[in-house]
Amino acid sequence: MARWEGGTLERLQAAALSLFASKGFDETTAAEIAEAAGVTERTFFRYFGDKREVLFRGSERLVEAFQEGIRLAPEGSAFALVSAALAAAAEYFPDERRPYSRQRQQVIQATPALEERELHKGLTIARTIRDELQTRGVPETAAALAAQTGSTVFSLAFARWIQPDEKRSMAAIQNDLLADLRNLVR
Amino acid sequence: MARWEGGTLERLQAAALSLFASKGFDETTAAEIAEAAGVTERTFFRYFGDKREVLFRGSERLVEAFQEGIRLAPEGSAFALVSAALAAAAEYFPDERRPYSRQRQQVIQATPALEERELHKGLTIARTIRDELQTRGVPETAAALAAQTGSTVFSLAFARWIQPDEKRSMAAIQNDLLADLRNLVR
Repeated sequence: MARWEGGTLERLQAAALSLFASKGFDETTAAEIAEAAGVTERTFFRYFGDKREVLFRGSERLVEAFQEGIRLAPEGSAFALVSAALAAAAEYFPDERRPYSRQRQQVIQATPALEERELHKGLTIARTIRDELQTRGVPETAAALAAQTGSTVFSLAFARWIQPDEKRSMAAIQNDLLADLRNLVR
Repeated sequence: MARWEGGTLERLQAAALSLFASKGFDETTAAEIAEAAGVTERTFFRYFGDKREVLFRGSERLVEAFQEGIRLAPEGSAFALVSAALAAAAEYFPDERRPYSRQRQQVIQATPALEERELHKGLTIARTIRDELQTRGVPETAAALAAQTGSTVFSLAFARWIQPDEKRSMAAIQNDLLADLRNLVR
């Protein structure tokens, strides 16, 4: 049998996603994931605290990307800062990741507890953007509004990006939505 | 002892909120609420399916207000339709309700399961606005964006409305936020 050539981390993620999709998240154990990836259960737990973490590893880095985007942006309006945050976040969604993201999304939508967690990720992103905007001197209300708006653009862009017929990059979809938003409130 | 003169429903709500605030939501039983309101437990269950419902009764009517606002609005842009939905929703938050809303919010923030439910209320509002906008002919993406934006304005306005120092009406705060939003994306 051909063995996938990725590193252990990637093998575990691929095995987990495949099992979650076929058996269901709740019915899959860490031991089964380890076995499918050809490693011991102990190895699994060297990489992940639990099976849920397989799907949410990287969330912190995504949140940091939003933060960094604002920190490194030149002086500008709140909207410009949010746009910079979105651009930085888009780098976490290169086209080659799209198939993985699509499969992950199906697993999440099939499992209410995972949907909750995903929802909270959205809240964390909005709060992070807000705090970072305030650090850059944007007043509280404007920061909250800009942050929620940025989080909305990100969520809607991501939902669009993983559609089967979608060909645009994450960055392109976000930019189109930002333009839509301008038209909306004009 | 002076007995509050409100109807049974209002007495039950006041008693529940007072007990939730003093003892905690989880530690309060339906029987205690009924007793504090001077009615039988059976009466409590004629009004509410469970103690959580005391806090979420009226949520459906709020969602319907957003719907009605869009349905009854004259021909206009997606933004104008969302503004109409917000104006209709604001009628559910007259100034005399502010003390109740403040106390309710404290109970909700102290209880994670209630926060979840409140979060889902926000999602329901966004989905309802989106569907209603599509019914009015707004294309899918624009409808989703406008709906999320409307839901954001509503949430931020509500959070502001219940601040101790806030004097503006819910409608006024929403309008100020809509103006902020225009400035933001300009």
